[in-house]
Amino acid sequence: MRIAVLGAGAMGSLFGGYLSQENEVWLIDVDPQKMDKLNREGITILESDGSSRHFHPRAVMDTAGLGVMDLIIIFVKAMHTRDALAAQRHLIGEKTWVMTLQNGAGHEDTLMEFVPREQIIIGTTQHNSSIVEPGKIRHGGGGKTSFGLLDGNVEKIQYIADTFIKCGFETIVSDNIKKQIWTKLFLNASSSVMTGILQVKHGYLLDNEHAWSLVERLAREAVAVANADGLDFDAEEVLTMIKTVVGNSREGYTSIYADLRDGRKTEVDTISGSVVKAAKRLGVPVPSHEFAVQLVHAMEGKKN
Amino acid sequence: MRIAVLGAGAMGSLFGGYLSQENEVWLIDVDPQKMDKLNREGITILESDGSSRHFHPRAVMDTAGLGVMDLIIIFVKAMHTRDALAAQRHLIGEKTWVMTLQNGAGHEDTLMEFVPREQIIIGTTQHNSSIVEPGKIRHGGGGKTSFGLLDGNVEKIQYIADTFIKCGFETIVSDNIKKQIWTKLFLNASSSVMTGILQVKHGYLLDNEHAWSLVERLAREAVAVANADGLDFDAEEVLTMIKTVVGNSREGYTSIYADLRDGRKTEVDTISGSVVKAAKRLGVPVPSHEFAVQLVHAMEGKKN
Repeated sequence: MRIAVLGAGAMGSLFGGYLSQENEVWLIDVDPQKMDKLNREGITILESDGSSRHFHPRAVMDTAGLGVMDLIIIFVKAMHTRDALAAQRHLIGEKTWVMTLQNGAGHEDTLMEFVPREQIIIGTTQHNSSIVEPGKIRHGGGGKTSFGLLDGNVEKIQYIADTFIKCGFETIVSDNIKKQIWTKLFLNASSSVMTGILQVKHGYLLDNEHAWSLVERLAREAVAVANADGLDFDAEEVLTMIKTVVGNSREGYTSIYADLRDGRKTEVDTISGSVVKAAKRLGVPVPSHEFAVQLVHAMEGKKN
Repeated sequence: MRIAVLGAGAMGSLFGGYLSQENEVWLIDVDPQKMDKLNREGITILESDGSSRHFHPRAVMDTAGLGVMDLIIIFVKAMHTRDALAAQRHLIGEKTWVMTLQNGAGHEDTLMEFVPREQIIIGTTQHNSSIVEPGKIRHGGGGKTSFGLLDGNVEKIQYIADTFIKCGFETIVSDNIKKQIWTKLFLNASSSVMTGILQVKHGYLLDNEHAWSLVERLAREAVAVANADGLDFDAEEVLTMIKTVVGNSREGYTSIYADLRDGRKTEVDTISGSVVKAAKRLGVPVPSHEFAVQLVHAMEGKKN
């Protein structure tokens, strides 16, 4: 396949690198120095087992004349999705799949401004990755990648999952991907965000009734949004799921916890922020998520 | 005057002690050891200038046969007000004033279960005080004490203010005490609570737009409650007032900040909690205050 990866950050480099084993991959980004480095030296991926891998996809800024792609994967930050797609509109043909594995829900709304609903693939991945230096990333951890079409058809895109699998990504085509994305978001926007705000491990959320009441409050609001978005979640079941996941990693620290502890910007806008965004679109009140977004940003601003 | 002070904690001891200079004061509490110590040794008040004062009001647990009081001042924690008044109902006569200087708004509702509206005095004080050991308190700082009747009449109770003043409390009888109480609550339940949650000085609230947006959110909700309670605040004026007060003490730390920093229980229930309580009574939504109450309690539970 001819694959364009929009955004040569940590995740774009990871997927672009791996997928280049079996596909013709273009990494597309706007940073000239980064692109130059990638073209000269390729991408080095430091694996969590101590090994490292090296790939050499093409890295370009100017995509004029490249022609349409078979698959475009969006890995820019959510706030840049619209601009990135507008700039690369000429890569989208009538048979081009446009895929987002970005965190958060509702990205399909932005994609639909550029491509018919039938060509959109949305999904989630458990892989994470961070930049060590330009051209070098640390592959933090793996896990499943799930994606699917909005109409639930799985056959049409199974061959895409097949190339992901061949390239080393454990991949599933989901017939209910929106439900899966919301399920992930429930966790991230309730328990994960609260570990960040309170600066605690997962276990604290279960041990302190007040902390848990906030997880519950955030989860219930998010369920209301998901259900207004056409899904059919039961809030009690969602709370049980969150309790189970959190209970299974009582000693676990989340990335939003670590980001706030270390004084970094967090992903709260693509987590709680995407609940707020979807809620606005659907007319559902989410005051706790609005509070959480502002609170996390206010915490980011503190000198630690 | 014959004055009963319900609750011989830090504030009750301060007011009971000072007022005993010119009045017959009974400190009433349920802790036998504390009462015994107070009766034997009296109250020592460590003043902030390094001096100390000593007073010897009566301390009693059993008030049977004491007869009705001229004034009852309530200094138990708000959650104990009802029980304390129920136990001391026999001290209330047809001419007994019942006064609350407790933090928070809406205490008059509880008092009205025991005494006619006309006999209720509500107020606020800027004095603060903490327990050093039984019988010994530290008088942290002074300031104004304001109280008033619910109907705004000032003449009827000026003589009470006079004895407060004689005993060393700068005191004003207010003709609009509810407004004053709400004004104090706006500050405490917005900016003060946010300095606690964020663990920052006042100035940070003005410097960080996200922090300020939360102050604003809390203030607007509280104004809506106050206005539903029959007052007539303008939200923009309130925000200007908060900005001014906070700006005048940019380097200031609040007590809720210090309580959370040092792992102590805070007064959030009488601050944000009393906004929530009034809001429930009046049917006004205050999701941000509900979030703040739970969040502060969740922070209290952390081992620092």
